[in-house]
Amino acid sequence: MISTGFQASNLGDAIEVVNQMLDWRLADENVTEDCSEEEKDPIFRESTRCKVFLGFTSNLISSGVRDTIRYLVEHHMVDVIVTTTGGIEEDLIKCLAPTYKGDFSLPGAFLRSKGLNRIGNLLVPNDNYCKFEDWVIPILDQMLKEQREENVLWTPSKVIRRLGREINDKSSYLYWAYKNNIPVFCPGLTDGSLGDMLYFHSFRNPGLIIDVIQDIRAMNGEAVHASPRKTGMIILGGGLPKHHICNANMMRNGADYALFINTAQEFDGSDSGARPDEAVSWGKIRGSAKTVKVHCDATIAFPLLVAETFASRREKEKKVNVGVSGS
Amino acid sequence: MISTGFQASNLGDAIEVVNQMLDWRLADENVTEDCSEEEKDPIFRESTRCKVFLGFTSNLISSGVRDTIRYLVEHHMVDVIVTTTGGIEEDLIKCLAPTYKGDFSLPGAFLRSKGLNRIGNLLVPNDNYCKFEDWVIPILDQMLKEQREENVLWTPSKVIRRLGREINDKSSYLYWAYKNNIPVFCPGLTDGSLGDMLYFHSFRNPGLIIDVIQDIRAMNGEAVHASPRKTGMIILGGGLPKHHICNANMMRNGADYALFINTAQEFDGSDSGARPDEAVSWGKIRGSAKTVKVHCDATIAFPLLVAETFASRREKEKKVNVGVSGS
Amino acid sequence: MISTGFQASNLGDAIEVVNQMLDWRLADENVTEDCSEEEKDPIFRESTRCKVFLGFTSNLISSGVRDTIRYLVEHHMVDVIVTTTGGIEEDLIKCLAPTYKGDFSLPGAFLRSKGLNRIGNLLVPNDNYCKFEDWVIPILDQMLKEQREENVLWTPSKVIRRLGREINDKSSYLYWAYKNNIPVFCPGLTDGSLGDMLYFHSFRNPGLIIDVIQDIRAMNGEAVHASPRKTGMIILGGGLPKHHICNANMMRNGADYALFINTAQEFDGSDSGARPDEAVSWGKIRGSAKTVKVHCDATIAFPLLVAETFASRREKEKKVNVGVSGS
Amino acid sequence: MISTGFQASNLGDAIEVVNQMLDWRLADENVTEDCSEEEKDPIFRESTRCKVFLGFTSNLISSGVRDTIRYLVEHHMVDVIVTTTGGIEEDLIKCLAPTYKGDFSLPGAFLRSKGLNRIGNLLVPNDNYCKFEDWVIPILDQMLKEQREENVLWTPSKVIRRLGREINDKSSYLYWAYKNNIPVFCPGLTDGSLGDMLYFHSFRNPGLIIDVIQDIRAMNGEAVHASPRKTGMIILGGGLPKHHICNANMMRNGADYALFINTAQEFDGSDSGARPDEAVSWGKIRGSAKTVKVHCDATIAFPLLVAETFASRREKEKKVNVGVSGS
Repeated sequence: MISTGFQASNLGDAIEVVNQMLDWRLADENVTEDCSEEEKDPIFRESTRCKVFLGFTSNLISSGVRDTIRYLVEHHMVDVIVTTTGGIEEDLIKCLAPTYKGDFSLPGAFLRSKGLNRIGNLLVPNDNYCKFEDWVIPILDQMLKEQREENVLWTPSKVIRRLGREINDKSSYLYWAYKNNIPVFCPGLTDGSLGDMLYFHSFRNPGLIIDVIQDIRAMNGEAVHASPRKTGMIILGGGLPKHHICNANMMRNGADYALFINTAQEFDGSDSGARPDEAVSWGKIRGSAKTVKVHCDATIAFPLLVAETFASRREKEKKVNVGVSGS
Repeated sequence: MISTGFQASNLGDAIEVVNQMLDWRLADENVTEDCSEEEKDPIFRESTRCKVFLGFTSNLISSGVRDTIRYLVEHHMVDVIVTTTGGIEEDLIKCLAPTYKGDFSLPGAFLRSKGLNRIGNLLVPNDNYCKFEDWVIPILDQMLKEQREENVLWTPSKVIRRLGREINDKSSYLYWAYKNNIPVFCPGLTDGSLGDMLYFHSFRNPGLIIDVIQDIRAMNGEAVHASPRKTGMIILGGGLPKHHICNANMMRNGADYALFINTAQEFDGSDSGARPDEAVSWGKIRGSAKTVKVHCDATIAFPLLVAETFASRREKEKKVNVGVSGS
Repeated sequence: MISTGFQASNLGDAIEVVNQMLDWRLADENVTEDCSEEEKDPIFRESTRCKVFLGFTSNLISSGVRDTIRYLVEHHMVDVIVTTTGGIEEDLIKCLAPTYKGDFSLPGAFLRSKGLNRIGNLLVPNDNYCKFEDWVIPILDQMLKEQREENVLWTPSKVIRRLGREINDKSSYLYWAYKNNIPVFCPGLTDGSLGDMLYFHSFRNPGLIIDVIQDIRAMNGEAVHASPRKTGMIILGGGLPKHHICNANMMRNGADYALFINTAQEFDGSDSGARPDEAVSWGKIRGSAKTVKVHCDATIAFPLLVAETFASRREKEKKVNVGVSGS
Repeated sequence: MISTGFQASNLGDAIEVVNQMLDWRLADENVTEDCSEEEKDPIFRESTRCKVFLGFTSNLISSGVRDTIRYLVEHHMVDVIVTTTGGIEEDLIKCLAPTYKGDFSLPGAFLRSKGLNRIGNLLVPNDNYCKFEDWVIPILDQMLKEQREENVLWTPSKVIRRLGREINDKSSYLYWAYKNNIPVFCPGLTDGSLGDMLYFHSFRNPGLIIDVIQDIRAMNGEAVHASPRKTGMIILGGGLPKHHICNANMMRNGADYALFINTAQEFDGSDSGARPDEAVSWGKIRGSAKTVKVHCDATIAFPLLVAETFASRREKEKKVNVGVSGS
């Protein structure tokens, strides 16, 4: 694939970068004077891996890529997640009712009359959002109670963790994020159906507060406290998830591996379309880092990438384990 | 331009849509039974205009389009603004130090060594962010004090309003938004340099809370309480500003006019690339609305659009006023 | 894949369309009154397949997709080919000397000083074109001789067929097109390195004529005389190959199956970016046809498509044959 | 505009590059030893300008940009033109019957039933092509007669020149190209409605030959014999016109000025999307050349560019002339 040229090469390079990210161990680095005792311990060094930040836009959760992401989170193959609000609610709603395959050209007014909301070539019935409302409002009530009674200061990531616990469904990546203690950040949490729910709730049962400052502390902390580990970024789509992961990594002078898969272009100066090299100028990615951008819809490229990296390793490890346990 | 074809037509249509948006008066509609007394008053009806929501991504504030936006806000030609964090901080920072013209192909590692951060073909020195830090931290201290002493519950829009007041600079659109009481929403306020400042501040002087729930109430309220007015949306770029304005307008069963200017495409199912007709399926735009998407970098299309709509009207009105006062 | 959404769906649909194209037999249609005797013969009907037009731009021959195309041509899985001049010469040159993997960002002036020509992230040394010149000029001499002595009226497709015969290399798709009598059309044959050679040759040994009218007769004839067969179009990239295949199919009131894989968009009114539905308005594709456009670089999507269609069928047929011969 | 950033900057740069192209005189260069006597003559040097190659795809002739191109050709502001077949026939057909404004989303089957062909958001009735057939077939008859009686070897550019003469309509850029002796090249002349006509004609009155070799001689000669002049390229859209102009300029070791306006991207390795720097590696553009690519639909960018370059100069010159004649 690498020798094919054009984006097949870039996808081939992406597979290589992710495999390097997964191969890395602290033991591959020299022991330096400023290492702590733990960091000098060979066993610690051999088991210390790159910290992987995964970002994606909400449309990928609306799509079947949700299953691929759930697989990564279930098997704790990523360490920190950033998404947009739709990337939260669509995961939960899919546990309550299905999304359908439609067509990019279905007329909006017709769909509106049928109570169908279009996301690209996918359709989500209005009723799904009603089910979501019925499910989430009592949870918000409970959260408000805890705020009042236990003095909890809610943040987006705490809310998301709670929702992952409550959904209690193995098809949900948020459930697995909760189970595996993988933080999920979403700084613009009100920008979606969940925001609609928080809006409605603010009339029915006012008083809930969601603070964003504790979350920027937590998010940046994930990057800063990654040392002595390396960090890697895998970012699908643009917008807030791309910027947020890169910005946090700036706090540690840059990520060590970076993979972007998106369809945005740099010519309009948007952060969405910026090449990895723009992030190098900011110190969001190290000058020495391995980076690649694949210009492709992630619904095609990301399942291929995961098959050749995360999943193929897991298959190998499973075989080794079977061999060991079989002996 | 309309008869030229392709995107020249779309830009021509956009000019027409915006002029219709600006022309509309409540008096153009029939008086209905459910009108309030005020709404039946001819003078009220003649003076009641379409409510204009303006959204833009941060790169446009990094670019010279900031001046066009400042012009609109200074003359109170728009009513509600939504942007990303960069769209806040870049406006403020430009009051403290200039941004430079560079090139899309300048190497990141070289720029990093020179302390220059690249945004497309623009360059922002590191030092600008230091100046921003020096300027903003005392304001955050003061805000924390007010939180403690006056029980202020800060929200992104309240923070932004305070920053607009403090910058006190006529080149800043945030200054004019403050002066003209135009709310500026930014639900993901921690995702940018301002987030870095809030992060630093949370160590130096911990305790500040920024709540997002009061802002989703306020934002959706802007749409819901726009009735009996019509609403119009002018959205430059994609990401959060596009989704947030559309989503709020869903709360009132859709905007009446919608203009998108961006370079994103629909094929990847992203909200950024979605055509207006996708928003119709959601009830974010009315089926009867006038809509247009211009596929173009807003740095080219938006100044042309404003010249042929907002600005040309103002010139005409000024001439009329001169005529009147001269008589 | 079809249920994933977005371009994964479109790629899934593309696989389905191509499999339908390959499945079709005249026997699937009703016998009508205007059928000839041969067309009523069940054996003829069972063996009569859809006629497949394959188009691609030159960059795909520069890339490793050339091998996939060679595979299709070697096994006579397509019936008519249209490409640009680069799609001819790059196939031949690769038989003479290799193309290398480079990088999209290698500086042009540096490459120029090293005698390396860049095509995206691929590099072709100047020397390859010198080898091509040494190889092709004697063939042009011979062709001129045949024009004079045997009154041959050369056309682009005749020239290409001769070059395929002369290269006599199993890695070349043009060789296999020659062997399998698959016509390769290239109406703009002078627009490439081959044009440079024809230009040089016109000084060294003037008089060669290449007529394009006989080729438009032949090309349109391929479409018109396809009846009672159905026709299918598989077109990678835009430009001339896309237009030429569609235009020829207009002569028979439209193709029955159409697959476009490219990265161009419709908003600028280019034929490259036009959706299949635009071709329906022209009668280039039938209203009843199965059509799909995959928005993706063909280097990623096309090998996947071929694996799930042409190649998987061939594997199945091979197994069946092995089973039969083994019994 | 240059200081705005992003594509506004690029459009600003494009205006600068074109103005430099128009400003250049041979007198700006040093007299060298290898200059001919004429080339040393100060009057000759002062009047010798850059040779301008203009390329565009057919959709721009379908659009209103045709008028801008006609303006440039009428006033002999460009020296060589390359286009695709649609760029020839659409100019002629517009002299016979109008093109209409439609919409990108009009359904193909519906349009087909109404006899309307869609080009982006433009519509061309079938009847226009019938009128074109009635007009052009007698001309082809006459051309065949001249081939037989006067031994004319027709080439695409000769055919185009004849059609420009025959149309005899001041709204046609081909008419003005004929009047001003500006060659118009179209190496793939059979790929369009004109090809359909040549196809039909090959049955009704067979024997016409159109040779492409004499045209590649003529086209490359335009570039090679441009010395001691400089050459500049202005290319709208991608495909064959872009490649053909660049390739011809390779024959003189590169153009001195290059402006591309198109919406294609480089990531798929297509020549359409290639940046000017890729052409530098091939020697199609000199390393020292001024180059710029504007990422924009030419229907928006090109009329703006012409207004600020070719047209503003002409207005100035007219004023000077009026001043002179008025004194």
